[in-house]
Amino acid sequence: MIAEVQTAQFDTLKLDCGATLRGVTVAYESYGELNRERTNAILILHAFTGDAHAGGIDHEGKPGWWANMIGPGKAFDTDRYFVFCANVLGGCRGTTGPSSINPGTGRRYALSFPVITIRDMVRLQKALVDHLRIPRLLAVTGGSMGGMQALEWAVSYPDMVEACLPIAATARHSAQQIAFNETGRQAIVADPDFNNGDYYDGPPPARGLAVARMVGHITYMSDESMREKFGRRLRNRETVSYGFDIDFEVESYLRYRGSQFVGRFDANSYLYITKAMDYFDLTNGAPSLAAALEKTHSRFLVISFTSDWLYPSYQSLEIVNALRGRNHDVTYCELSSSYGHDAFLVDVGEQTGIVSGFLARVAREAGIDSAKVAPS
Amino acid sequence: MIAEVQTAQFDTLKLDCGATLRGVTVAYESYGELNRERTNAILILHAFTGDAHAGGIDHEGKPGWWANMIGPGKAFDTDRYFVFCANVLGGCRGTTGPSSINPGTGRRYALSFPVITIRDMVRLQKALVDHLRIPRLLAVTGGSMGGMQALEWAVSYPDMVEACLPIAATARHSAQQIAFNETGRQAIVADPDFNNGDYYDGPPPARGLAVARMVGHITYMSDESMREKFGRRLRNRETVSYGFDIDFEVESYLRYRGSQFVGRFDANSYLYITKAMDYFDLTNGAPSLAAALEKTHSRFLVISFTSDWLYPSYQSLEIVNALRGRNHDVTYCELSSSYGHDAFLVDVGEQTGIVSGFLARVAREAGIDSAKVAPS
Repeated sequence: MIAEVQTAQFDTLKLDCGATLRGVTVAYESYGELNRERTNAILILHAFTGDAHAGGIDHEGKPGWWANMIGPGKAFDTDRYFVFCANVLGGCRGTTGPSSINPGTGRRYALSFPVITIRDMVRLQKALVDHLRIPRLLAVTGGSMGGMQALEWAVSYPDMVEACLPIAATARHSAQQIAFNETGRQAIVADPDFNNGDYYDGPPPARGLAVARMVGHITYMSDESMREKFGRRLRNRETVSYGFDIDFEVESYLRYRGSQFVGRFDANSYLYITKAMDYFDLTNGAPSLAAALEKTHSRFLVISFTSDWLYPSYQSLEIVNALRGRNHDVTYCELSSSYGHDAFLVDVGEQTGIVSGFLARVAREAGIDSAKVAPS
Repeated sequence: MIAEVQTAQFDTLKLDCGATLRGVTVAYESYGELNRERTNAILILHAFTGDAHAGGIDHEGKPGWWANMIGPGKAFDTDRYFVFCANVLGGCRGTTGPSSINPGTGRRYALSFPVITIRDMVRLQKALVDHLRIPRLLAVTGGSMGGMQALEWAVSYPDMVEACLPIAATARHSAQQIAFNETGRQAIVADPDFNNGDYYDGPPPARGLAVARMVGHITYMSDESMREKFGRRLRNRETVSYGFDIDFEVESYLRYRGSQFVGRFDANSYLYITKAMDYFDLTNGAPSLAAALEKTHSRFLVISFTSDWLYPSYQSLEIVNALRGRNHDVTYCELSSSYGHDAFLVDVGEQTGIVSGFLARVAREAGIDSAKVAPS
């Protein structure tokens, strides 16, 4: 399954901050086919540093970030569903973001890009859904920030979402989550190469961005998974160096991950997207989370993981309890995993059966044609 | 109780790395009086960024970092015990470290300072104890890195330590703990002002050091204590700014703590002391932790805190179980607190009674004169 990136253009996009973006591009991929009624579409929403390449393999042979969940016979079964994923607004992987050219000036936006929200991301996805002439989504789903977008979909467009599957997500960032993001942002702006965001004609703030990524990686893993993967193992040596070169495997891993990230991610996108996450509060002025969720008509499958300390289970339970309080159709699964927050990406065994069973029930109850497509 | 910093000098100190330091200074404070036999001494060992000013108030009116635990009638009762605390080797608060003048060159050591270990720190403390003509310590104690030093004392000088009280500590850093330290180190060395450690004649690597401190602060608090202290409260504003200035209280707190730290701590000391923590492994080549603890004769009180995710209770239990396996005298208390790793510093109510009761028992069983000193 070779994945092709496609794009769609929109003239304008109104934003929560009051600004209007002009000339907005969305990059997306899709897998599987729409049924005749165009009712079997599943919108996949990516996490912070993800992109539209969720399934299949690209032309360079690189599998999508959720390739283990998307495909024939997989959780998001492309023999039954039309599955698609778009790079988020503010990103740097094909969709308009701070590294894009501002059509008004002919120069890159950099920090003149307006500050965006999760709801703005969802608003652009809605434009894409309309563009694809999809009247109603069978499901919206994603892990981490993808789960936040899924929740926002269910609240912003209650008539458009049959099922909502937020995984390892939250209805609002806690102080600790904001704190980790703020540390990453400060690492970036502390780098002299950041140059107040105007670094596109020179070297990027590579060192700051790498440090930000190192912090991130620690939070994505669990204490246990780091112990299992690295422990106190030394890197290519028998004894410690008594120096500041790499001693431990875990140091080598973090430095590698940090430097590798610089090649594929834009520092300004880091700032904008983390800010959107920090701003996200599904309650959004309503008296309670339950009140905010009042108007949704979706069925919910909420999944969290035991060792995820970045988006702990109690945050998923908050959503579940708010939904239950309003008598919504909600299933909650706390899955046992040692992989920490990364579990939704890498430990998908149990998740697969739960998601595919849930989707089959939703399709059946909603009378949606999701018959397995005969091999052609 | 006005605390006076004193110093002691030593000609040489042999280090684990093989090097010998010449002209070593130790800064220390003491509170209370030695009894006639000099057997009522309690050595307080400070955490990563602490210093010798553990108790009382200094000339500027600043209370010691454990002033709530040290003093007349407190856990470390200065009416009964001679309590003292020294700045660690490698530090920047009076004891020889990378910012000290190398007597061989007349210039600051910077990165020519040898890489040190927790055992080296303890070796220097032992020289101080000998200098003070203390034949045997009633107790060694400290939280976090202070607890590691306490454990090292019990193993390195088994005949010198009546009681060992490691609090919120570990017998070895986990991959996650090393990872957080490495991130801080990389933030510092990424700062161009770091200049390979030779920054003493120019600006210090303030931005990198501040980011390192921000990461640290997150790990010292719990998710719960951050929620209670900051939640999603905005800083001096009614709505979010849609910008990259400070929106949330927690951002303001972290930036303040980061910038404040730069004025009181040396970036090179940050590198050396975190490295010493990461290297620390009480096992040190022994077949097991229990085997390493075989030779200690100390009584142990091990304390951990429920919400401490940086030095989780399981790490204390590892020590406790190793001691129990060799039939040592060990008491373990997991105290309930929402303050995270900071609990040993700030949530000392329960800790106080447990420590003072334990010390009284040890003194009684060891026949040590710790009678309350009559007010003079």
